[in-house]
Amino acid sequence: MKALIVAAGKGSRLKNLTRNKPKPLIQLLGLSLIERVILTAKQAGIDDFVVVIGYLGDKIKEKLGNGEIYGVKISYIENKEWQRGNGVSVLKAKELLKENFFLLMSDHIFDAKILKELSQVKLKDGEGILVVDKKPKDYIDLDDATKVKVENGYIRKIGKKLKDYNGVDCGIFLLSPSIFKALEESIEKGDETLSGGVRILAKKRGMRSFDIKDNFWIDIDTKNSYRKAEKILCKKLIKPTDGPVSRHINRPVSTRISKLLVKTGIKPDLISSLSFAICLLSAFLFSFGDYLHIIVAGLLSQFSSIIDGCDGEVARLKFQQTNYGAWFDAVLDRYADAMIILGIVYGWWSLHGKVEVWIAGFIALIGSFMNSYTAIKYDAIFKKNKTGKIRFGRDVRLFLIMLGALLNQMYYILIILGILTNAESIRRLYILKNE
Amino acid sequence: MKALIVAAGKGSRLKNLTRNKPKPLIQLLGLSLIERVILTAKQAGIDDFVVVIGYLGDKIKEKLGNGEIYGVKISYIENKEWQRGNGVSVLKAKELLKENFFLLMSDHIFDAKILKELSQVKLKDGEGILVVDKKPKDYIDLDDATKVKVENGYIRKIGKKLKDYNGVDCGIFLLSPSIFKALEESIEKGDETLSGGVRILAKKRGMRSFDIKDNFWIDIDTKNSYRKAEKILCKKLIKPTDGPVSRHINRPVSTRISKLLVKTGIKPDLISSLSFAICLLSAFLFSFGDYLHIIVAGLLSQFSSIIDGCDGEVARLKFQQTNYGAWFDAVLDRYADAMIILGIVYGWWSLHGKVEVWIAGFIALIGSFMNSYTAIKYDAIFKKNKTGKIRFGRDVRLFLIMLGALLNQMYYILIILGILTNAESIRRLYILKNE
Repeated sequence: MKALIVAAGKGSRLKNLTRNKPKPLIQLLGLSLIERVILTAKQAGIDDFVVVIGYLGDKIKEKLGNGEIYGVKISYIENKEWQRGNGVSVLKAKELLKENFFLLMSDHIFDAKILKELSQVKLKDGEGILVVDKKPKDYIDLDDATKVKVENGYIRKIGKKLKDYNGVDCGIFLLSPSIFKALEESIEKGDETLSGGVRILAKKRGMRSFDIKDNFWIDIDTKNSYRKAEKILCKKLIKPTDGPVSRHINRPVSTRISKLLVKTGIKPDLISSLSFAICLLSAFLFSFGDYLHIIVAGLLSQFSSIIDGCDGEVARLKFQQTNYGAWFDAVLDRYADAMIILGIVYGWWSLHGKVEVWIAGFIALIGSFMNSYTAIKYDAIFKKNKTGKIRFGRDVRLFLIMLGALLNQMYYILIILGILTNAESIRRLYILKNE
Repeated sequence: MKALIVAAGKGSRLKNLTRNKPKPLIQLLGLSLIERVILTAKQAGIDDFVVVIGYLGDKIKEKLGNGEIYGVKISYIENKEWQRGNGVSVLKAKELLKENFFLLMSDHIFDAKILKELSQVKLKDGEGILVVDKKPKDYIDLDDATKVKVENGYIRKIGKKLKDYNGVDCGIFLLSPSIFKALEESIEKGDETLSGGVRILAKKRGMRSFDIKDNFWIDIDTKNSYRKAEKILCKKLIKPTDGPVSRHINRPVSTRISKLLVKTGIKPDLISSLSFAICLLSAFLFSFGDYLHIIVAGLLSQFSSIIDGCDGEVARLKFQQTNYGAWFDAVLDRYADAMIILGIVYGWWSLHGKVEVWIAGFIALIGSFMNSYTAIKYDAIFKKNKTGKIRFGRDVRLFLIMLGALLNQMYYILIILGILTNAESIRRLYILKNE
């Protein structure tokens, strides 16, 4: 199915951000708004787009091209009358859209999941579907939003000034070409808004409501909603599998760093490599064994743990996730873990000359590896992520190493790591048996 | 769909094996023939069986029960006239089978894949399907086999004495209840064989041929075919992912051991644990460091590598594979690998006192783990087995350790292991990137 994106407007309320460029090209976390809309839709399986351009449309055309760099197809329609209502913009696509299509707004950011679910719905003949938010979050500007009244799953009323409403129009539609006839009728009657067309379609053919549920959407119309969108997209980077240190200490810092990194052209794999290099440096410093080197090494290892979050964050914010990237990152992490333990052991041994530290190091290394291995082997065999919640993770291990370094107790930290990691592995042998 | 299994005959040509028991209860690699047929069908998704018993039928009933221990449902029909043709046995099931069903012979062993594929085929009204081997292997006794003449995908002629044939009846059918009418007609005419009924069905409604292709099947009728079946089932235990040492040295020995183990009640997990225990003993002996201990330890580690194959072999031969079992085995293997390296390092260090061996051991341990980790992490992320062919595996590592032990060169073996395993990991970072 194709998706029609309305990108003709000026966005006059975002003056500071739209100097010399149209609203759809406003940068948000490394991508312009319209790029984000296209890449979100692509995640939901849509790869053919029609973009209605108007105000400074050539700049949009120049930026997106034929869509090849995004792995999609993009064609354009020019609406020279972009200052009229947005219904006029949609109507311009009449000749290009002879089958059912999605209609998206270039300034509405949303979860790909919504489109994935919407594309499973079967449209009845001539009917349309509008995604509706029944419990709009506090960051939705209700004064400016288009409200709807839904009854028995159908839109009964729609309008900005509706008093009696029970939902908000999210600007995401699944439509059949019947919308164009409805728009013509509405425009003829003097209402040039998209809502006008929707109102007529709702009466004549039926306009169903599709509940957005807990999924995220936002209309970026003001400086305030822009800031809110930025904040929420960053918050969504926290993974349910994140360990405690990652969640409470690393992510708040790493997302701030990622916010800067997305503005550069730095690729996720390079960030993975950088985090690895910091670990190697940490391992090297640990190998000296004296307190001063150890403190710096410990702080570096915790720092690399933070940076290690950024590769995935940047990849997700810029839709650059790849299977290889995830694998590459995991492999480097394991080597980094091992080198740090080797560095610690060597450093302690250089100073104290006792062989016990080598045995403690061996056991800590075995335990660290086994925690990573048992989890991923389980996922591979069972084809699902079962161990996510029970992972004694890298974030905790590197944090313990930093604590040990600050207290100059590297030998005991190795013993603690060895006990905790191996106990966790053995625990898994039991609990997973009874799953 | 249900499966009907004919298990009424005596099997007089297998006298030595059938003393006091009916042919379907002949033991083959730890399971009776009929158990193997049922469990094979279960792998193909069939869990409802009707078994026609005759000669010593009570013994079969006693053995299989209601099927609960196999996780299937089994009901029985008694054919007191079992000395008549096998068509009579099939006809006895007439009242129980009102829908399409599979017909299997209790003495025909075959690949589950055949039934999986056959169950995808849609049967046209009243028609039947017979699985046919167009290129029977040399172990199929052509004098005794039922031959068929296939034309345009349909059976035209069928019979034991057919001269003009182009395939062999594999004894696996997908039938509709129309077969019962055909059997009645055939028996009335004096032909009490199943082939008689098939011949009539072929003429009246159509009997399609389903090519068995390269899948395995065998009719266990003679001592010779019994031995052949045993040999082939053992050969099938070699996995495509087996490394060179595993394939050429370990499997020939381990399958011989498994042939004995399946006759006992020993469970695969116990064998995994035993192999692990042997590794721990090997690690302990390595830790002494002197040549005599090392030789024994090296031989033990290679022996455990062989035993490590038996858990999977027994599990597959007895249909006892579980995801947990595969995971448990892998986790124990990694711990065993680590303990052996630790034992080697400690032993060499005890004798020579040089710290370099600890570093060499660390690097060898990292490399060993990384080979296991990179492979399985890749499989988990990509949801497919890509690294199977490029695995520098455990079989090679343990074999190298044995060689090192026999030559009393444990330090150099650690260095060699460290280089080979880590080189393999780094190679994977490159080749998988370009996949």
